Amino acid sequence: MIHPLSTLERGQGLRLKEYYMEDLELTLKKMKLASAKLAGMTNETKNKALMAVSAALVEYEDAILEANEEDLNEANKAGLPAPLIKRLTLNKDKLRDLNDGLIGLTKLADPCNETLMQTELDDGLILTKKSVPIGVIGVIFEARPDALVQITALCIKSGNCVVLKGGSEALHSNRILAKIITDAVCEVSADFTDTITLLETRDDVAKMLSFDKYINLIIPRGSNAFVQYIKKNSLIPVLGHADGICHIYVDKAADIDMAVRVVTDAKTQYVAVCNATETLLVHSKIAQKFLPALKKSLDAKHVTLKCDKRAKAILPDTEDATEEDWKTEYLDYILSIKVVDSVEEAVTHINTYGSGHTDGIITADENTADYFTTYVDTADAFVNCSTRFADGFRFGFGAEVGISTNKFHARGPVGIDGLVIYKYILKGHGDIVDDYATGRKHFTHKRLK
Amino acid sequence: MIHPLSTLERGQGLRLKEYYMEDLELTLKKMKLASAKLAGMTNETKNKALMAVSAALVEYEDAILEANEEDLNEANKAGLPAPLIKRLTLNKDKLRDLNDGLIGLTKLADPCNETLMQTELDDGLILTKKSVPIGVIGVIFEARPDALVQITALCIKSGNCVVLKGGSEALHSNRILAKIITDAVCEVSADFTDTITLLETRDDVAKMLSFDKYINLIIPRGSNAFVQYIKKNSLIPVLGHADGICHIYVDKAADIDMAVRVVTDAKTQYVAVCNATETLLVHSKIAQKFLPALKKSLDAKHVTLKCDKRAKAILPDTEDATEEDWKTEYLDYILSIKVVDSVEEAVTHINTYGSGHTDGIITADENTADYFTTYVDTADAFVNCSTRFADGFRFGFGAEVGISTNKFHARGPVGIDGLVIYKYILKGHGDIVDDYATGRKHFTHKRLK
Repeated sequence: MIHPLSTLERGQGLRLKEYYMEDLELTLKKMKLASAKLAGMTNETKNKALMAVSAALVEYEDAILEANEEDLNEANKAGLPAPLIKRLTLNKDKLRDLNDGLIGLTKLADPCNETLMQTELDDGLILTKKSVPIGVIGVIFEARPDALVQITALCIKSGNCVVLKGGSEALHSNRILAKIITDAVCEVSADFTDTITLLETRDDVAKMLSFDKYINLIIPRGSNAFVQYIKKNSLIPVLGHADGICHIYVDKAADIDMAVRVVTDAKTQYVAVCNATETLLVHSKIAQKFLPALKKSLDAKHVTLKCDKRAKAILPDTEDATEEDWKTEYLDYILSIKVVDSVEEAVTHINTYGSGHTDGIITADENTADYFTTYVDTADAFVNCSTRFADGFRFGFGAEVGISTNKFHARGPVGIDGLVIYKYILKGHGDIVDDYATGRKHFTHKRLK
Repeated sequence: MIHPLSTLERGQGLRLKEYYMEDLELTLKKMKLASAKLAGMTNETKNKALMAVSAALVEYEDAILEANEEDLNEANKAGLPAPLIKRLTLNKDKLRDLNDGLIGLTKLADPCNETLMQTELDDGLILTKKSVPIGVIGVIFEARPDALVQITALCIKSGNCVVLKGGSEALHSNRILAKIITDAVCEVSADFTDTITLLETRDDVAKMLSFDKYINLIIPRGSNAFVQYIKKNSLIPVLGHADGICHIYVDKAADIDMAVRVVTDAKTQYVAVCNATETLLVHSKIAQKFLPALKKSLDAKHVTLKCDKRAKAILPDTEDATEEDWKTEYLDYILSIKVVDSVEEAVTHINTYGSGHTDGIITADENTADYFTTYVDTADAFVNCSTRFADGFRFGFGAEVGISTNKFHARGPVGIDGLVIYKYILKGHGDIVDDYATGRKHFTHKRLK
């Protein structure tokens, strides 16, 4: 079979065999230097590149689906579970969604080159703080080939070089997608040379982790254990999320119908995801009425309830919750329930056991809602809505490179704004510090922006 | 001698012997919960706390200077070098400067509770991004007791709990300062309870590094080796600076007098600091005229010049520079010099050997200056002024907790703006994701701010 890939292999793009397999360090060194070029790229060029990727995905649709077919055949032979195979599968619908996402990104403002602050330090000595790309970002992601396109697109728009490592089950899909994207963007501008690299082995990932000289940030998507492994094995800063132990607190002033509806969605709309609710906290004054109504709704979805003593007194036909339950991300049709006596108690429980991912309150009392959103220590503090809204697309970011439970750099769903940093530019006319140190001159520190 | 400290010991403040010595984990656990309270504190209360610290520093001036005297006696007995003793010394002038700094901080806007973005996701479903404190920050700093006051003040203003560990030579000074500050702020608001902790041993630091559950950020001030040690021994994110290998590039369009004046200041105004210039790059078209003029100025300050071949041809009476020199932070009266043929070559040299701290250009050509500031990968890109301006006070931040060569979270001098993160607040009316997943409803994603 003559594959379009064989033509592409002669292009400017992905050069798997030319050097990176032999010398990852050389590749990363080139990427670091190339990252400076992306820092100077206009929004227009970056948008052109995204449109070129969009066109190439259409042009090579058959080849992409064929490569994906190869991955799927191997996955089926290996007997991978159905949910994994679903994520691995590309089809025309998924490719259309990816294209919509690319076009959506071109409509967003440039996250770089924005003047964030400007101060006159003294007459003619102007300090400007400008947003700039982070540099070289390593992203390790699950066997979901559409993730490769989304991540690379977010990096292009934010002016970052990207080292990609996808789940090995998607090897053929990732290879052709990386090649097609690289060729498309390099045709728009030679400045994209050495800005995208695809790694294919765990060994390469282990090597990458040692190159803190060249890589500015690692984004590992995956289990808490995997994120901890990356943190323990690298000096490179890590943007990731640990567990998603999300809570909903149903306040005494909650509308019971609304609370049932929202908790049911938050628990059951999709259980295997990090923003699904795992623990329900309910005010003692409303528990008697609310819990039986909730149980009816959750029984219909076959949810197992694990109750503390006070909740169990109301719902005797349930399991017991232990201390361990407050720390557990079930990712399953299981909900732990605890009765509390105040919003303060709810917030303290969440700040003690939560993972700082997404935590919500159901209440008609605005003061209680404000107390909750102010004092709960979480990336996403939600009022009267489902925790499942915690997502880059739903937040209007176009897509996300991941969700962060860090309280450093970027928190919550991370879109292009989380992929930039800033630089200070100071312009003078021969100004020296000695004049200020000796008191001949004095700073004005006038804020201009 | 009856010391004011003995009265203070009965207060609400620093309780050295009550628990932290026995159980650091318990202290940190309490600090994590206390950090939520600081997140809800008004700017007014935080400013009152800073003013209370200012008043207490005046009230207990004699006791502070006495405690400092104890440290100085021990330092002199141990024969510590003069520059260290100078940094260790507190006096009325330094205390007055600290007070000015505290009052300056009260005049800055609250870095927390700022609406950074607001989006309508759908009718009545509003997403708000608000700035919030990071939480609990560990700062390890040199034997300079005024640093303790500055760091704590920055943490108070930004609503962060702080774990302090100062150089052991300043033990007595740090102890009384931490106690005085803690008592002063706790009198303003009980919410400051458990927000400030002073560690006194290396062993405590080692223990602290393991508590990534409770501490959100470590700021180690010190040598590159020390920062690397912290990074290698903790999963907590680290904000620090590696070497300060700062460059100045003298362009062909530079004013020679200006260039001599600025380079002399950048090299010699204070050699032992991270923002002093270590490497000079000079355009080949101006080197012949500029280098002899510069040498005359630097000879007067006894600066050793280490030249590459082309520079040496112009200044034969100098030492040879090797590859190692481009990677070396001298922190001394030594300057390495290299002749280049273009601003592009200068930028590539800096992006290869620099540490991303502070790098400047001297040129009268605005296009060349723009090329330089756009493509040089550094926290502080300076035009026609000394690298020595890279400093939180000079930048108008009041003070700094340190300088960051990270490209993650905060870069360059770090003031209160570098000590905050954000939180997303989503307010709805019973909104569930299933409505959007099944296409019954559609997002509007209208940007409100």
